[in-house]
Amino acid sequence: MNILKIDKVAVIGAGSWGSVLANVLVQNGLKVQIWTRESDQVKELNEQHTNRHYLPELKYDQRLVATADLQLAVAGKDVVIIAVPTKAVRDVAGKIDQILQQQTKKPLIVHVSKGLELGTHKRISQVIEEEIPANDCTGIVVLSGPSHAEEVARKDITLITAAAKDLTTAKTVQQLFMNNYFRVYTNDDIIGVELGAAFKNIIALGAGALHGLGYGDDAKAALMTRGLAEISRLGVAMGAKAKTFLGLSGVGDLIVTCTSVHSRNWRAGNQLGKGIPLKEVINNMGMVIEGISTTKAAYELAQQQQIEMPITEAIYDVLYNDRNVKQVIAELMQREGRSE
Amino acid sequence: MNILKIDKVAVIGAGSWGSVLANVLVQNGLKVQIWTRESDQVKELNEQHTNRHYLPELKYDQRLVATADLQLAVAGKDVVIIAVPTKAVRDVAGKIDQILQQQTKKPLIVHVSKGLELGTHKRISQVIEEEIPANDCTGIVVLSGPSHAEEVARKDITLITAAAKDLTTAKTVQQLFMNNYFRVYTNDDIIGVELGAAFKNIIALGAGALHGLGYGDDAKAALMTRGLAEISRLGVAMGAKAKTFLGLSGVGDLIVTCTSVHSRNWRAGNQLGKGIPLKEVINNMGMVIEGISTTKAAYELAQQQQIEMPITEAIYDVLYNDRNVKQVIAELMQREGRSE
Repeated sequence: MNILKIDKVAVIGAGSWGSVLANVLVQNGLKVQIWTRESDQVKELNEQHTNRHYLPELKYDQRLVATADLQLAVAGKDVVIIAVPTKAVRDVAGKIDQILQQQTKKPLIVHVSKGLELGTHKRISQVIEEEIPANDCTGIVVLSGPSHAEEVARKDITLITAAAKDLTTAKTVQQLFMNNYFRVYTNDDIIGVELGAAFKNIIALGAGALHGLGYGDDAKAALMTRGLAEISRLGVAMGAKAKTFLGLSGVGDLIVTCTSVHSRNWRAGNQLGKGIPLKEVINNMGMVIEGISTTKAAYELAQQQQIEMPITEAIYDVLYNDRNVKQVIAELMQREGRSE
Repeated sequence: MNILKIDKVAVIGAGSWGSVLANVLVQNGLKVQIWTRESDQVKELNEQHTNRHYLPELKYDQRLVATADLQLAVAGKDVVIIAVPTKAVRDVAGKIDQILQQQTKKPLIVHVSKGLELGTHKRISQVIEEEIPANDCTGIVVLSGPSHAEEVARKDITLITAAAKDLTTAKTVQQLFMNNYFRVYTNDDIIGVELGAAFKNIIALGAGALHGLGYGDDAKAALMTRGLAEISRLGVAMGAKAKTFLGLSGVGDLIVTCTSVHSRNWRAGNQLGKGIPLKEVINNMGMVIEGISTTKAAYELAQQQQIEMPITEAIYDVLYNDRNVKQVIAELMQREGRSE
């Protein structure tokens, strides 16, 4: 697919990330329709050009068009960007495919999820592949990296990775998004990019727990370092390239997620570290904490692959075996020293 | 050398890091003498068991003995730890060797420097090797990783790396320091550990400059990620293992140095980013900023090795070519996107 032919884009999902990406693309000169099931949000975006619940400060480009009609959003588009929560991807992708089956135009699919499918532990591009088969689209790309919607909204500089099985497809997405503040690198290791994005949330829960327990910066840096090593090990066993964990979607996203108080997973971990019970933490957060289910997925995958993942096991014990967080973390940090 | 035979240790240099390491070893049951040329500091350490200028809150173990007599400190010791600033290492190592030449006992040498020798760009273990030849010691080990003296002083958990050409020597140092809050990993890539520790200060200057210029967490994470990649490239060209840059002394120390406001290099970079001239920044800091000379060393080494190091080149331009920091950083962050 040639970039010159791309003109019309659909963004499916109008949370903070979806809506800010839609805005970037409008400003890059593309015709963008954004879909959300919430009619109030559609009205607000179209009439007031705001999305207050998610990014209260951002005034959206007036050329961005919102709709609650999925058929209208998807039909005839060159690119469809799926920006719904991980757990909603399969359902939405299936509905998108029903629309695509009825038209000859086959779009490029992009997703921005940072999780694995609950139960199946599948990567999100695998889920999409199953719902939108190869003859209904021209390829699947993941966009991932250290990126706060708030910072992209205010045109702070963000560097991010577009990954696909083949680099040409990734390059199309790179050219689509690239501007002077949103810089896109390409990568052909979609497995590594998706797994890094998902697994780093486990380490963020751990980093938050350390902070909640009163540990300092040395302990946090150590946990992040050892955490990066163990999620790379599992990733490589699952077919990822080790090098990808050193890139923007790996260590880059790990750094942002573990060092920013804006990270949901870090904040949830911090509350756990302070001794607040899991149920209460989930209530307090009031939104999906992807790391909780990703910990379970990674724990089970590590068992299958026989990969040693002490940090993941410790977090799993706290989340699913009701073990005392203070004791588990103390044991983790005091494991026998050995060769790196 | 067997750990069971180690009893007497000298720590040469009583700054924050040297004095806190000496205290750890005393509490681990060793007989430790710490050397400083300042007689007031000797008196304070021996009589009041404090080292106010460096770590005002720490009460040192009463068994720690300070001396201003290098002969007394070094003679008959099993291990000599060199903890003076990088620029003083050659001179001190030469003086230590004069003492070692006169005795049959040959100690293990440990150093904790995080720089390169000015002018020669040599690693610190190379400098020590030249001054204390193999027949005057039983080996040279570097101790390095994400470690604030303040956190070790309050027995927060710190994970650190002991590296030597052979793992057995590194293991001796591991056993020496290891306790329930100070956890030592071993590594036989002394080149990688020393280079990671030195080069990360360049990236910390850059991260500080970004912050001073008002950039956000996305930009910082991206700079750290791309910075890690470029210092690994140079390190590998100089004989390091790529993997070492993923360890505690690599990415671990990078994280602590770039995300802690306590880091001198980060603080210096932050002032540069705010537009304060270099001379004034150096004056304001009132202590050695290792990253400034390391930037020059890495820049020259990269030219020799023909390694692309855009971040190092940008920082070099600001420090040594008087280029405008805002413009240089903006150019750096907007370089052509490409494959990772």
